[in-house]
Amino acid sequence: MTYPLNSSVKPYLITRRLHPENQETPIQFIKNDKIDHQLFYRRNHFSYPVLSYSNYWLPINGFVTTPRLFSMQDILRFPSKTIKVVLECSGNKRNLFEPKVFGEQWGKGAISQGYWKGVPLRTLLELSGIRKGAIEVVVEGYDFGKRTDLDGIYTYLRSLPIEKALHPDTIIAYEYNDQPIPFKHGHPFRLIVPQWYAMASVKWIKQISVIDSNFTGPFQSIDYVYYPNKDNNKNAFPVTTINVNSTIQSPLDLEVLNTGNHLIKGIAWTGRGVISKVKISTDNGESWANAKVDHQDKIGYGWVSWTYEWSVLEKGEYTIMAKATDSYNRTQPASPFWNRKGYGYNAIDIITVKVE
Amino acid sequence: MTYPLNSSVKPYLITRRLHPENQETPIQFIKNDKIDHQLFYRRNHFSYPVLSYSNYWLPINGFVTTPRLFSMQDILRFPSKTIKVVLECSGNKRNLFEPKVFGEQWGKGAISQGYWKGVPLRTLLELSGIRKGAIEVVVEGYDFGKRTDLDGIYTYLRSLPIEKALHPDTIIAYEYNDQPIPFKHGHPFRLIVPQWYAMASVKWIKQISVIDSNFTGPFQSIDYVYYPNKDNNKNAFPVTTINVNSTIQSPLDLEVLNTGNHLIKGIAWTGRGVISKVKISTDNGESWANAKVDHQDKIGYGWVSWTYEWSVLEKGEYTIMAKATDSYNRTQPASPFWNRKGYGYNAIDIITVKVE
Repeated sequence: MTYPLNSSVKPYLITRRLHPENQETPIQFIKNDKIDHQLFYRRNHFSYPVLSYSNYWLPINGFVTTPRLFSMQDILRFPSKTIKVVLECSGNKRNLFEPKVFGEQWGKGAISQGYWKGVPLRTLLELSGIRKGAIEVVVEGYDFGKRTDLDGIYTYLRSLPIEKALHPDTIIAYEYNDQPIPFKHGHPFRLIVPQWYAMASVKWIKQISVIDSNFTGPFQSIDYVYYPNKDNNKNAFPVTTINVNSTIQSPLDLEVLNTGNHLIKGIAWTGRGVISKVKISTDNGESWANAKVDHQDKIGYGWVSWTYEWSVLEKGEYTIMAKATDSYNRTQPASPFWNRKGYGYNAIDIITVKVE
Repeated sequence: MTYPLNSSVKPYLITRRLHPENQETPIQFIKNDKIDHQLFYRRNHFSYPVLSYSNYWLPINGFVTTPRLFSMQDILRFPSKTIKVVLECSGNKRNLFEPKVFGEQWGKGAISQGYWKGVPLRTLLELSGIRKGAIEVVVEGYDFGKRTDLDGIYTYLRSLPIEKALHPDTIIAYEYNDQPIPFKHGHPFRLIVPQWYAMASVKWIKQISVIDSNFTGPFQSIDYVYYPNKDNNKNAFPVTTINVNSTIQSPLDLEVLNTGNHLIKGIAWTGRGVISKVKISTDNGESWANAKVDHQDKIGYGWVSWTYEWSVLEKGEYTIMAKATDSYNRTQPASPFWNRKGYGYNAIDIITVKVE
């Protein structure tokens, strides 16, 4: 008998909390553009809901001419589309903020992507007849529980502006990477809102309501709001579109390398347009060069991979930076926009390595 | 059909590097005093070795009267002992050092414990006849590879002073938690050196050599040395005994809690004697109270669990600290002993929480 019997090496989710389950993707060790659901980050506000599958109906109600109840079969029969989408938790990279902010201490892995298949929310809304004067669409999940800051029980629900709800790529998804959506990621139906932070992509959809007002629920009026000040709520504004961003996957931060050639690699993504360039600095921002950005589709809902060939002959410490820019000329700032709840971190990505 | 179908929630190893495999234990989420091997941290210098099990012999040679070759059966027949031991990587908590140090960025989970069964190394050494003048015992593993700082191929091997090698609790282990040692943790034989940092507990033992000099290999003369200065090697000294230490497991750092009663809990351990007390502060070190320390065995090779009941009525931010003291009156310092390679971090453990 010869060893090793079981020396296969693989990465795992990184546990931030177990109840509710919040675990992040080991993003530095991901090589695919399609993340297996087992390594897809898990972000929950509450414990997992209990659903009755045999008796599942999706109601569309509220400010519509014809409230409807769709069966699972109905939804699967409508014309579908499949889109490659980045889902990024708005708290991604929260642990990089200085001063530190409270809440789940996500590193760089509260982000994943893959292929979601579903029916446009628009299809269901049009069949229900949106009444004139409709302003928002509220999507409610089956998950519920307590909050630390309020008494009572709350369901996870959020609204979209009517225009975003009617965007043809805002879908009610039922497949992820050619399989039914895994339970932990929203089975049987999950709203997928490309280009918005993933708090909008409500899991385990229970009900969809059209309203003629602006929705205020705690997951919209308290959480997922940028509060620029530590001690008051002045100048607060909601979290919506994903910021332009990038993450260096290799080398690792504080890694020790030898002299020679090294491939610096990573990903870049944005919530507006497409990534137009990624610049790399290996001298702490003194000089910048273009990374080689992989081919991307025109739609830009996914991330792009990029590489940069670095030849380093001199021993010493090096600070490596990545800075992405999108087609709307949004670019990663040198300093993050600090906000009290720690959303939307997108400062230039920085690592330090030692060459010996 | 009712959901959830698969909503069991469990923690995983935290990946620090895949090649070689370095993954840490999710220590905040460990409830047992006996860590399952799947969640036991993995720390490797090289890729996993390939061993021939059917042809395994353990040589004891060098400065002995009768060099010996022990078969696996020989070793399993000797009187054995089982000891509960903490293994702690000397780089545990490295990512807390400021200024940052290079190398694997271990958090608080490069530590595990469980029950190791084996034969005292002393038994094998005595059968081989240690010659007068023997100074150290070199234990070599089957793992080998390249280093970033030196040319050539190196095997992982380290020495123990003869007294430590002859200590009756320094064992050649072959079982972990009543099962054969899993391959990744050193099967078939692993040296277990209680009270020393785990670089001494050589995995996949290939050979044991008694020498009449002081051993110098790179894993002893370059690595696993405390270098107090950033730019020179002055006042360097070797890493050996585990420092007195503690880790808060709950609450989590930067967690948001509600007012009321909370159980602060964690573990404490030491490489000398036993833990004599654990003090907790919930006011940033202004005042301290005794935690309730669980029963521990007299030998003190394991960690002890401790708890502290905290009643908090006032909203605000709280800095919680844990400080362990051992029976040699060693206590955790307020500031860590910074050293260039980042070993032996044992400053008072600190977390911050927000009560709302």
